[in-house]
Amino acid sequence: MSDLLGVAVLGAGHMGADHVRRLDQVVSGARVAAVADPDAERAKAAVAGIDGVVVHTDVEAVLDAPGVEAVLIASPGEAHEEALLAAFARGLPVLCEKPMVPDPAGALRVVEAEARLGRRLAQIGFMRRYDEEYRQLKSLLEGGRLGRPLMLHCVHRNVSSPPHFTSDMLVTSSVSHEIDAARWLLGQELTAVTVLRPRPSAGAPEGLLDPQLVLFETERGALVDVEIFVNCGFAYEVRCEAVCETGSARIGDARTMVVTAAGGARREVPQDYLVRFSDAYDREVQSWVDAARGGRVTGPDAWDGYAASAVADAGVRALETGSRTPVDLAPRPALYTTP
Amino acid sequence: MSDLLGVAVLGAGHMGADHVRRLDQVVSGARVAAVADPDAERAKAAVAGIDGVVVHTDVEAVLDAPGVEAVLIASPGEAHEEALLAAFARGLPVLCEKPMVPDPAGALRVVEAEARLGRRLAQIGFMRRYDEEYRQLKSLLEGGRLGRPLMLHCVHRNVSSPPHFTSDMLVTSSVSHEIDAARWLLGQELTAVTVLRPRPSAGAPEGLLDPQLVLFETERGALVDVEIFVNCGFAYEVRCEAVCETGSARIGDARTMVVTAAGGARREVPQDYLVRFSDAYDREVQSWVDAARGGRVTGPDAWDGYAASAVADAGVRALETGSRTPVDLAPRPALYTTP
Amino acid sequence: MSDLLGVAVLGAGHMGADHVRRLDQVVSGARVAAVADPDAERAKAAVAGIDGVVVHTDVEAVLDAPGVEAVLIASPGEAHEEALLAAFARGLPVLCEKPMVPDPAGALRVVEAEARLGRRLAQIGFMRRYDEEYRQLKSLLEGGRLGRPLMLHCVHRNVSSPPHFTSDMLVTSSVSHEIDAARWLLGQELTAVTVLRPRPSAGAPEGLLDPQLVLFETERGALVDVEIFVNCGFAYEVRCEAVCETGSARIGDARTMVVTAAGGARREVPQDYLVRFSDAYDREVQSWVDAARGGRVTGPDAWDGYAASAVADAGVRALETGSRTPVDLAPRPALYTTP
Amino acid sequence: MSDLLGVAVLGAGHMGADHVRRLDQVVSGARVAAVADPDAERAKAAVAGIDGVVVHTDVEAVLDAPGVEAVLIASPGEAHEEALLAAFARGLPVLCEKPMVPDPAGALRVVEAEARLGRRLAQIGFMRRYDEEYRQLKSLLEGGRLGRPLMLHCVHRNVSSPPHFTSDMLVTSSVSHEIDAARWLLGQELTAVTVLRPRPSAGAPEGLLDPQLVLFETERGALVDVEIFVNCGFAYEVRCEAVCETGSARIGDARTMVVTAAGGARREVPQDYLVRFSDAYDREVQSWVDAARGGRVTGPDAWDGYAASAVADAGVRALETGSRTPVDLAPRPALYTTP
Repeated sequence: MSDLLGVAVLGAGHMGADHVRRLDQVVSGARVAAVADPDAERAKAAVAGIDGVVVHTDVEAVLDAPGVEAVLIASPGEAHEEALLAAFARGLPVLCEKPMVPDPAGALRVVEAEARLGRRLAQIGFMRRYDEEYRQLKSLLEGGRLGRPLMLHCVHRNVSSPPHFTSDMLVTSSVSHEIDAARWLLGQELTAVTVLRPRPSAGAPEGLLDPQLVLFETERGALVDVEIFVNCGFAYEVRCEAVCETGSARIGDARTMVVTAAGGARREVPQDYLVRFSDAYDREVQSWVDAARGGRVTGPDAWDGYAASAVADAGVRALETGSRTPVDLAPRPALYTTP
Repeated sequence: MSDLLGVAVLGAGHMGADHVRRLDQVVSGARVAAVADPDAERAKAAVAGIDGVVVHTDVEAVLDAPGVEAVLIASPGEAHEEALLAAFARGLPVLCEKPMVPDPAGALRVVEAEARLGRRLAQIGFMRRYDEEYRQLKSLLEGGRLGRPLMLHCVHRNVSSPPHFTSDMLVTSSVSHEIDAARWLLGQELTAVTVLRPRPSAGAPEGLLDPQLVLFETERGALVDVEIFVNCGFAYEVRCEAVCETGSARIGDARTMVVTAAGGARREVPQDYLVRFSDAYDREVQSWVDAARGGRVTGPDAWDGYAASAVADAGVRALETGSRTPVDLAPRPALYTTP
Repeated sequence: MSDLLGVAVLGAGHMGADHVRRLDQVVSGARVAAVADPDAERAKAAVAGIDGVVVHTDVEAVLDAPGVEAVLIASPGEAHEEALLAAFARGLPVLCEKPMVPDPAGALRVVEAEARLGRRLAQIGFMRRYDEEYRQLKSLLEGGRLGRPLMLHCVHRNVSSPPHFTSDMLVTSSVSHEIDAARWLLGQELTAVTVLRPRPSAGAPEGLLDPQLVLFETERGALVDVEIFVNCGFAYEVRCEAVCETGSARIGDARTMVVTAAGGARREVPQDYLVRFSDAYDREVQSWVDAARGGRVTGPDAWDGYAASAVADAGVRALETGSRTPVDLAPRPALYTTP
Repeated sequence: MSDLLGVAVLGAGHMGADHVRRLDQVVSGARVAAVADPDAERAKAAVAGIDGVVVHTDVEAVLDAPGVEAVLIASPGEAHEEALLAAFARGLPVLCEKPMVPDPAGALRVVEAEARLGRRLAQIGFMRRYDEEYRQLKSLLEGGRLGRPLMLHCVHRNVSSPPHFTSDMLVTSSVSHEIDAARWLLGQELTAVTVLRPRPSAGAPEGLLDPQLVLFETERGALVDVEIFVNCGFAYEVRCEAVCETGSARIGDARTMVVTAAGGARREVPQDYLVRFSDAYDREVQSWVDAARGGRVTGPDAWDGYAASAVADAGVRALETGSRTPVDLAPRPALYTTP
């Protein structure tokens, strides 16, 4: 018998298939034991060449398959609540892609269910916490060398948005990364949101409010501004500058080769988040596998998933009304630490 | 008889004395003909070692001194309106330090007076328009290669603020540079202001709202955000990123010597605006002298001075109310071009 | 039965122990099956907490241990020849740390032994070929967009050298990385070496000629200069600039977080090669494991190991004589491709 | 009567005309009093629009013209010795473009003539000493914070060379700037030269050995390597890294706007030395005018001009022979300080 952690992967789309590849070829100590997808052919394609994987269209059947010791949820957000509760019922450690649950009410039900269990099972897929530069920044801020953080200036640009991307999704899907990163970097909850809408870019699909400038206030008076621009056409860029009382720190100018030719010095800029954050994804999953094999759960927790949903929900209302919108958070169960 | 342009300098404080030195030692084609300051000793000190300069406490006396062919106004802002009108009355070309006139009503009277003359006499001291990097950015935006500008992200940091600096002055004095730069770079008027107030830095004097995040909207839908932080303690930094439809452009990361030692690669950052913008000041005054000797007036005009006052005035109200505040601009006389 | 590749690790020192950790915790698809070290306690310490590992002081015993399917050689360079030949005798794929064999005669014997086998078994541990920036540079040069490479400017700095490091070892141990990188990037053999010796740094141990400037000529007329400085005291830095006919490309300016504080903008610089090249080591070993599981051997080959020894040997003579010293290479067996 | 310094400019070619413009329009406190050029039409064209300038084909006539108080020599190098001696005979302060005198024997005669006068009259046009970044580097090295300099790595690239540029001229004309900069930065004489010749670039004119790698040794054991590449086609780049015992310092990565578009982040690189060093030229001439008006002579002296000629002369022999070539310097007269 192998001592590799047997993982059930729920969802075999773009992200699910990438995680199957990662578990099989990159991460140490894990194996893909089962895969669930409503489209059986897609599930089979994702595990082609891997031996001994149970494939099924039914989530419960996959969770109960022999050798399943942990669950990685990469299905659409709407399916997450049911999958998380099913994993909790079986006592299985879970890595759940973001958003944990898109609507705050459902997210809160997950938090309450885990709080009733009295122990953590879920890690939420905010992979930026595993990015080397974000960790440097977190460590710097926690060390206190620059004093208290006053502002975060964030930039989040995609070359283009997927089909059917809506104006709400700039906040709920794209900015959700900055929501979690800001909570984590600052160690504070976000308390209010304002969304400003410049005239849309000619490169944005008809009707999409792109770019937006999203402003967050925090419980201890810091400000976070986020440029979100999902059809910028020229780069995948994620930058963050923390402005503190005695210094500022910037991350996100990718390290790379500089080519000087034809009158300019040019460095390549990544075009895709799987390029920019590939190391972070690898570390995230490796870290989850290592903890699960040791009987532990670490990383972003269900409260982080819930808080991100609640803030994003306020952001959607702020986008619609054009007004500053307070964030409404339930009381935090004792199981969860501060962000 | 010399063919150097005879300049009367009004005000012999920090900035006035620096302009005296510049006219005497740096700029070609000009000489200091007269200096006015209410403090005669200070005026004398400013021209020590320069021959043949008329020194007086009275502005009119200085404007009428022999050899005066042009006026550089570096007195406090409250004295500018009277000085500008006096120069107009004599038909003298003027370089007037910013703010042209602090209150919008007074600024509008200057605009109307010059419009009645029917020809330009005043250049306003927005020296960033003469900075090499700002000019590169302006040229890039005008060329249209990156499409329409959607947002400007600006950072403006001072090591410390002068004594008696008030929360209003972060907008009216410091951000006035960004107000002009945004109008000039975008070629649009600013139409509304919002000011956000994070919890003040521990390094700010008691009662000063520092830093602030100032947001401007423009007549064609662009957004401008400005971090203004006048007691950051660590650097004089002025940065600007223009986010456009097909690319972004950044200026303001001064590139000087990089020293690698003791585990870090470090480049010096200027601590003072006279260091960061010394070339811009030199070019500004040289450009003014060259134009005046040729019987012309170029550069930022009285309308630019008025618009900056009007926007800053709206900014002060936005800071007080915490609300989005529209900018109220008078109709633009035909004498003046778009920003 | 597990389908993980069973690896015997020879040598349990600093590098060997790090590879044991990597095989156990980082790399996918491999397990540590056996470890050999003359110091049995050190070998045991390296595999503490890993189940089912055979530990022995004898190399042959370890190669013949059950489950051994591949060999990673991390013992001192003097032991490599015997270990490589023993692996060849058993038909085991090998990853051999550099130097493959320190003296060119021994290295040539390894080449000839593998050539007699008629198939590749050895991959040599030139891990820079797996560094992301080096791969970008290699790809750029091969693409031909910048024309033919004319010069490489290389910098290789260590904070401090290990005890007993000799002046020869700056060339044979440190510069051996540049020797391989230059051969690989340019696709050419190195044909002559000159070593210049500036007055040693006060930070260098008594008698050590540190830094040195090492110059290589290539078979098609390119020049390679290498600053090697192993007691610089301030940084682990590896940089390379390729100067080509229509452009230049630079790698090695690690871009991490930039902290602006107290008058300077500073980015951290790594102090250790295990930090700078940790990803490259991971990729190197993963790539070797993946190939071995698929019955293949890829990466730098025994000829590369031999050529590096031959060039370094000429370098030592160049250091001693102060003169330009030609490199003497045996004919290349058909098994091996160009560098 | 004007108190502007009356300057005679010898030579009205590219550089002479640029200095006429600089004296007339940029520099404070000087005026063009006379211009000499064998081509009278070219001389007239250079001073078009400037009043009261004596124009003549004869150098002596121009030096004796009314109002001439100082001389700027911008004629071809072969004419410098005679012009310098003529200025010395009249006690006129001189700014002489580099090379001071191309052949070391002639340069030494100038040194001896000035030494006989017993006071300095000549400043030599090594304008890099007036570049802001070079001055920062000089100041850092003199301060001693990084310990003793061990090596200088220099890069000097031109987009293309002028017609009739010879292989010798890479050393005598282009590298002469690095010769002076190295002497000045290190405060040491250069004692030997070696020139390496990679295969020429396809972009170099037929027969021109371009690029070259020039190596200098100094009297206290430092090494200087210079890449000189005068037909690189892509940039005017001048970089210098000083490697010291406890740190390194780099200059020459020009500060400028960064444009991110179409997958790359690009900053403009200057194409011309008049762009890269325009501020240095302005400061050089201003500094000379200021000193001359005060009855002083400062800046690089005739000994610096002679030493540059002597080192370049050894460099030409090193290029021809392919061997290390010692530099032969005459004893330094007491009038001159160390480099």
